[in-house]
Amino acid sequence: MKYDFEQFQGQVRELVERREADQVREILDLMRVQDIAAVAMQLRDDDMPWVFARLAPGRRVDVFSYLEPSYQYRLAIRLPQEEAREILQGLVPDDLTALLEDLPKHEVRRLLRLLPYRTIRRALTLLGYPASSVGRLMSPLFVAVRPEWTVGQALEYIRAQSEQDITVNTVFITDEHEQLQGMIPLKHFVFGAPDDLISSLQGVPMVSILTDAPQAEAIRMMKHYDLEVLPVVDGDNALVGIVTVDDVLDAAEEETTEDFHKMGSVGIGLSLRDAKATLLYRKRIGWLLALVFINLIGGGIIAWFEETINALVVLVFFLPLVIASGGNAGAQAATLMVRALATGDVQTKDWLKLWTKEFAVASALGVTMALAVSLLGYWRGGLGVALVIAIALVLIVVVGSLIGLLLPILLTRMRLDPASASVPLVTSIADVAGIIIYFTMAAVLLNLPVHSV
Amino acid sequence: MKYDFEQFQGQVRELVERREADQVREILDLMRVQDIAAVAMQLRDDDMPWVFARLAPGRRVDVFSYLEPSYQYRLAIRLPQEEAREILQGLVPDDLTALLEDLPKHEVRRLLRLLPYRTIRRALTLLGYPASSVGRLMSPLFVAVRPEWTVGQALEYIRAQSEQDITVNTVFITDEHEQLQGMIPLKHFVFGAPDDLISSLQGVPMVSILTDAPQAEAIRMMKHYDLEVLPVVDGDNALVGIVTVDDVLDAAEEETTEDFHKMGSVGIGLSLRDAKATLLYRKRIGWLLALVFINLIGGGIIAWFEETINALVVLVFFLPLVIASGGNAGAQAATLMVRALATGDVQTKDWLKLWTKEFAVASALGVTMALAVSLLGYWRGGLGVALVIAIALVLIVVVGSLIGLLLPILLTRMRLDPASASVPLVTSIADVAGIIIYFTMAAVLLNLPVHSV
Repeated sequence: MKYDFEQFQGQVRELVERREADQVREILDLMRVQDIAAVAMQLRDDDMPWVFARLAPGRRVDVFSYLEPSYQYRLAIRLPQEEAREILQGLVPDDLTALLEDLPKHEVRRLLRLLPYRTIRRALTLLGYPASSVGRLMSPLFVAVRPEWTVGQALEYIRAQSEQDITVNTVFITDEHEQLQGMIPLKHFVFGAPDDLISSLQGVPMVSILTDAPQAEAIRMMKHYDLEVLPVVDGDNALVGIVTVDDVLDAAEEETTEDFHKMGSVGIGLSLRDAKATLLYRKRIGWLLALVFINLIGGGIIAWFEETINALVVLVFFLPLVIASGGNAGAQAATLMVRALATGDVQTKDWLKLWTKEFAVASALGVTMALAVSLLGYWRGGLGVALVIAIALVLIVVVGSLIGLLLPILLTRMRLDPASASVPLVTSIADVAGIIIYFTMAAVLLNLPVHSV
Repeated sequence: MKYDFEQFQGQVRELVERREADQVREILDLMRVQDIAAVAMQLRDDDMPWVFARLAPGRRVDVFSYLEPSYQYRLAIRLPQEEAREILQGLVPDDLTALLEDLPKHEVRRLLRLLPYRTIRRALTLLGYPASSVGRLMSPLFVAVRPEWTVGQALEYIRAQSEQDITVNTVFITDEHEQLQGMIPLKHFVFGAPDDLISSLQGVPMVSILTDAPQAEAIRMMKHYDLEVLPVVDGDNALVGIVTVDDVLDAAEEETTEDFHKMGSVGIGLSLRDAKATLLYRKRIGWLLALVFINLIGGGIIAWFEETINALVVLVFFLPLVIASGGNAGAQAATLMVRALATGDVQTKDWLKLWTKEFAVASALGVTMALAVSLLGYWRGGLGVALVIAIALVLIVVVGSLIGLLLPILLTRMRLDPASASVPLVTSIADVAGIIIYFTMAAVLLNLPVHSV
C-alpha cells in the first residue's frame, strides 16, 4: 500500500469535523508522526486537543515535538494540566529548549509553571549557551560506556538506557572523569563477542566539537566527516552532549535561508508566511534607506555633470544601461564569491588568483556587451557617443565585477559575514562607479564641458 | 589528545617532501580518511601514489572515495594496474557512478578498461537514471530480510553481509518478490529475542521514493520525516536502493548553490575555484546580454520623454534613485519569495494573501523613502518636483515589490524554477517600470511636454 499523505490529510479533516473518534484513531495509527503534526497545525485550536486525545499515548510526545512552537503552546494550554506536564517532561531537552527559546516571555512563564524543577534546570542549562552555538543545538541524551567493560556488560547497559528515546546507533566511550575516549558504531556490538573488552573494539580517529563553537562549524564537520552523530565536549574534554544529523539538516536550512536573506538585503529571521506586516517592514526598511543614500550620491554626481548633459542630452538615454550593467556583473561576481566562501570552495587567501581570473572574465564580458550596444550608440549619437559607450561599458563591467568579488573578501577579512555584501548593496555601489566612469569618459573623449563653477 | 587537522596536514607535507615512509604511515593512521583525501589533493601528482602506498590497505578505497573525480583519475592512472582495479571495484556503486559521471569521455574509457563487466554494468545501471533523479543518488547496497525469518536468522544473515561496507543501521523487510514491506532500526534486533519473528517487530508506517523522483524530493522527505535512510523502489514497489543522509547533505548543498547562482543570474554548475575563465564567461554572458536589452528599453523610454527632460533637467538628478529603489524593493521581495517557496514555507496558492500583505508593506516602505528624499527634491527643484518624487517613489516601490513577489509565483505556476526570477532580472524589470512611472508622473503633475512628434 502506498503511503499517501494528501489522502490521509483529507480524511482526518473530514472525520474531525464529524467527530468520528474511532475512524480518526484508525487513520492516525497509519500516519507518521511528522504528518500528524502537519495536519494538527491546520485544525482549529479547539480541534487540536480532541485529535490529540485520539492518539496512541506512546506517540503523543513525538507528535507534539514536531508542532511549531506557537502551536505547541496553544495545544499545551488547552490540554488537561496533568497531560500537558507529562508531555513537556517527555520532550527531549533540546526540543524543550527550542520551544522556550521561540515563545514570548509570558507564555514561557505559563509553561514553566507546569514543570518540575529538574526539567526546568536542564532546559535552562542549554539556554545558557550563546545563540547559534553548538550548545543550543545539542542533546544531552547519549549512551556512554567504559573502556574496561566487556561487550556483554555494555550491551546490558545500553539495553537498560534504550527505554528512553535515545540515539544508540553510535555508542561513546568515556573514562571515569567523563572524558571522551572514542565512539563505536552499534553494529560493532552486534557482531562482537560478549567477552571482548570495549577498549579492544576497532575505533576510528575521534573528532569532537566544543559547546560554544558556532553551529556552522558543526554542520561543516558532519558534512566533511560524513558523521551521523558528533560528540560535543566542554573545555575539559568531558562529553556533555551530541549533535545528530537531523538537527544539522534543520540548522543548515536555517543558515542557508539567512544567507539568502542577507544577499537580498532582507533582515534575517523572517518567515514570509508567519511574519506580521510590521515585522516585514522593519526588516526591510533599514537597507532600503541606506541604499537610497548611496543612490543619491549617484544623483549628486549627475548634477555635477549637468553641463555635460546639457551639451549632449543623448547621453541620458544610455544611463539605465550604463548604471545597470556594472551592477549586474557585480551581482554575479558577488553571488559566486559569497556562495564559494560559504561552502569552503574558495578561501580569502586565494584573492589574488581570483582577482586575476575575474579581471580576464569581466574584460571579455565587457567587450561583448560593448559590441552589442555600440551600434545603437552610433545610430543615436554618432561615432563619438558609440566610442564613449563602448569604452565606458568595458570599464564599468570590470569595476563592477571586481567590487562584487572583493567586497565579500574584505568583509570576511574584517570578520564580518560575507553574505552582507548583498546584491542590492553591490549593485548600488557599482551604479555610482558606473555613473562616474560614464560621464568622465564622455567629458574627456568628446571634450564636453563638466561643471559650471 | 585533540584532533588537529592543520597540524597533521603540515607534518604530512613535510614528511612526504623528505620521503619519510614510516613517519608518514604513523601520522596517516591517526587521521580520518576525509582529511587524508584533503591532504592528498594538495600534493603533486607524483607524490599521491607514494602516499597511497603508505596507507593501511583497508583504508585505501575509503580515502580514494573522498578524492574529487579529477584527482581520482590522476591517481588511478598512476597506480599499478592491479591496485587501481581493486580500488575501483571496491568503491560503492554510487561513488563509482559519480566518478564516471564527472570525468571527460576519454578518461572514462580508460578507467572502464580496468574493470570487470559486472562492475561496469552495475555502474551503467545507475547512470541510466535521469540526471538529478534519486536513481543517480542511491546506493544499491542494503540489507533486506524476510518477514517469516526469526530475529536470530536475520542477525546471522546481516552478520554475513556486513563484511562489505554496507549500511546496516536500518534493516529492510522484503517479501519473495523483493516488494518492500517495512524497515526496522538495528537496535530492535539487538534487544529482540532470537526466536521472535521479524514480522512481529514493531515498525513505523513506511515511506519510500521512486527511482525517477527528483533528488530535491528525497531531501524534502528525509528532512520532514527525520530519516537517516530512505528506501528507493521501482514502479512495482520492489526495493532497488537506499538514499543515506550523507548523500542528502551533499545533494542539498549542491541544490542550494544552484539556487544561489540562479538568483544571482549566473549559470549553474560552477565552482569558482576550478572553473576555467572561458567557462565562467560563457555561464555569465547570456544573462548579462539579456539584461542589456531590458535596460535598453529603459533608455528608449527616456528618449521618448526627451522633451520632458529638456523642460526640466533637474529630473535627471533623481533618476538613479528612482531606478534603483523599485529594483531594490523588488530584489527583497523576490529573495523572500524564492526562498520561502524552496523551503516550503509558502505555496503558490497563498498568492492573494501574500499580495495583500506585500501591498501594505511596500506602501509603508515607499512612504518612508518618499519622506526621506522629498526634502531634497524640494531643495533642488521646488514643491512640484518634491511632490513628483514622493508620489513616484511610493508607486515605484509598490510596483517593484509586487513584481518581485509575483514573478517567482508565475514561474512556479508555469512549472519553471522560481529561482530563475533572479535578483538582476527583477531589478531590471522594476527599473523600466520605475522610469515609466517617474516621467509619466512628472509630465502629468507638472504639466510638462512629452514627445515631439
